[in-house]
Amino acid sequence: MTHSNAPFSQAEYQRRLALTRSAMAQADLDAIFVTDPSNQAWLTGYDGWSFYVHQGVILTMEGEPIWWGRYMDMMGGRRTCWMDHDNILGYGDHFVQSTEIHPMQDLALHLKARGLDKARIGVEMENYYYSAKAHAVLTEEMSEATLVDATALVNWQRLVKSEDEISFIRKAARISDKVVQTAIDRAEPGVRKNDLVADIMHAGITGVGDDWGDYPAIVPLTPSGLDATAAHLTWNGAPMREGEATFFELSGCYRRYHAPLCRTVFLGKPSDEMLRAEGAQLEGIEAGLNAARAGNRTCDIANAFMDVLAKHGIERSGRMGYSIGLSYPPDWGERTASIRSEDETVLKPGMVFHFMPALWMDSWGLETTETILIRDNGAAEPMCSIDRKLFVKG
Amino acid sequence: MTHSNAPFSQAEYQRRLALTRSAMAQADLDAIFVTDPSNQAWLTGYDGWSFYVHQGVILTMEGEPIWWGRYMDMMGGRRTCWMDHDNILGYGDHFVQSTEIHPMQDLALHLKARGLDKARIGVEMENYYYSAKAHAVLTEEMSEATLVDATALVNWQRLVKSEDEISFIRKAARISDKVVQTAIDRAEPGVRKNDLVADIMHAGITGVGDDWGDYPAIVPLTPSGLDATAAHLTWNGAPMREGEATFFELSGCYRRYHAPLCRTVFLGKPSDEMLRAEGAQLEGIEAGLNAARAGNRTCDIANAFMDVLAKHGIERSGRMGYSIGLSYPPDWGERTASIRSEDETVLKPGMVFHFMPALWMDSWGLETTETILIRDNGAAEPMCSIDRKLFVKG
Repeated sequence: MTHSNAPFSQAEYQRRLALTRSAMAQADLDAIFVTDPSNQAWLTGYDGWSFYVHQGVILTMEGEPIWWGRYMDMMGGRRTCWMDHDNILGYGDHFVQSTEIHPMQDLALHLKARGLDKARIGVEMENYYYSAKAHAVLTEEMSEATLVDATALVNWQRLVKSEDEISFIRKAARISDKVVQTAIDRAEPGVRKNDLVADIMHAGITGVGDDWGDYPAIVPLTPSGLDATAAHLTWNGAPMREGEATFFELSGCYRRYHAPLCRTVFLGKPSDEMLRAEGAQLEGIEAGLNAARAGNRTCDIANAFMDVLAKHGIERSGRMGYSIGLSYPPDWGERTASIRSEDETVLKPGMVFHFMPALWMDSWGLETTETILIRDNGAAEPMCSIDRKLFVKG
Repeated sequence: MTHSNAPFSQAEYQRRLALTRSAMAQADLDAIFVTDPSNQAWLTGYDGWSFYVHQGVILTMEGEPIWWGRYMDMMGGRRTCWMDHDNILGYGDHFVQSTEIHPMQDLALHLKARGLDKARIGVEMENYYYSAKAHAVLTEEMSEATLVDATALVNWQRLVKSEDEISFIRKAARISDKVVQTAIDRAEPGVRKNDLVADIMHAGITGVGDDWGDYPAIVPLTPSGLDATAAHLTWNGAPMREGEATFFELSGCYRRYHAPLCRTVFLGKPSDEMLRAEGAQLEGIEAGLNAARAGNRTCDIANAFMDVLAKHGIERSGRMGYSIGLSYPPDWGERTASIRSEDETVLKPGMVFHFMPALWMDSWGLETTETILIRDNGAAEPMCSIDRKLFVKG
């Protein structure tokens, strides 16, 4: 423990290690190799845009975690991780994007040197940064070990946030308020969408007071009109137009923690159909918030929302939210509990979700969402403070 | 071909399909399933921030490519791809992050329906968006087919750019000039790094004239002082300080095409050691540009640079550049040819590289780089126009 650029206290990191090791013991694992950048950061503090090459964290049942990555990123490890520098390992540049050798060959040597050659080792089979090739090479190199799918083992430990983490998300929420307010204020007929997005990004990165803005794990999604019938378009240089709805799917980010918040702006006079949908959506969100209480399940939130919409004659199924917190691109979700009818995760105080009951209709889209905190008692707390409504301008 | 939001002409997409099918024939493949978002966009025009769920392009030896993804992203496919809407396929939301069913089961049904149940199918084993789990499920579901590693098969077809693509990269280069100039102008002692990054992003997204700025595949890397000894740190809220070098690793982006450009700013009076390194670096870059000509190899660029540095007593090995063009996070490189001594790719007119001979020393870092175009004759053309030097301020 040679320095403390890492964002949290030693006690917080020890809490995380203890939770993770308990889950490892339950899964009868001797070690895990963690590739999800948010899991790496959660365990070690590592923070850098280097996840486009193979890297990860080795955690056994004792001692500090070990961060392993490209040789040139060891310096980043030393600058951001809380562990002793002996526990920051690097492989040579000749491994990078080679078609002849693979970084997993280097990793295997380190695992074997730690006596893990016959161990049960958890790997994250379903993660962006653990490729099919990486698994094939590691399986071959560790032929006497047993590689076990430990996808989301660490992610599930992140579901209930500590007080320190909640305070980070509150800072992110203040930044979310700022970016969404910027979008609402600046949206006008004739404004180029990219100019609006430039202002949104500027607002987010300057942050609020001393709380500087980090990059969100998803770029602004800001489609208008027919483009807003699609869920994940970004932006272009076209001017905003009278008679169109634009949804803004945004999040502030404070030291990798997120608080996503979406609002929709209509320029002109919205149709009665859209206004009716807005009313149903807002009533459904209230019902969802009310169902989002400790002891209930994630599906209860989804069902409460859908019941209200059904009452108004609108069918909405599918996923309408997910656990959030620390994240790296390409997703700000934690990839554990979802708010949907088939998910029965029991809600506990300290869980934080993006409750995201967007409506994508045939000719328009309406996103009004909240980042919500499950409390000890009562309905969930919306962490942002922008008015919950369709914003109609002009 | 129902609409044309896609950024290129039909002729350009047909050129791409022909190149890809020729490579498929050489590899004796009946079909490929492409998960790399840049390969998807290059073949079909698809553009959306939806790559955090499983999606991809199926290409056989005949007919249009087929875009396949999440049901809610079919609308994005219809808005951005050039193909007939019948060739945009979607799977249900219950597949998303389920621990019981996997989207690759849906994909397998589509492959079988197209008579590919016993085919040789190329998959991208080494790609962020083709997980170990995805490969395991697809292998099981397609038990009579042969899945072949086709990593980078499409990427290699992208190496030589068309005139249309070069014109996109030129637009990106103008935006790169603007963002780097913004960084140089705004860097001063006391300026918070995040405020500077906010201005950089604003400059990039507003773009240049009608050429609106898209999001670069890597966020600004802007470390100062000791942090600049690490290659991939992003930013924080600390004020810039007298006596420190800050490197800016940035790129403009025009409709997903990049032109990375790095410059270093020193606030105060740099050491003689740093100035000597700067001199060697600039002389080495000239030598590299001169070696970067059609008929030479990528290693010739690296060797020319290293020879100059060795003459000045500086050892620099490793990778010092890579092919660039269209890309999505987390990397703006094309992941094919590298500028390094062990890479013998023969240079051809129309190739574009980020020539990136950065120096990361014990106590500081110095990045001065160029996006270069291989010409029909003569040395490579640097595509940006910011002065090539260490910028000393104050």
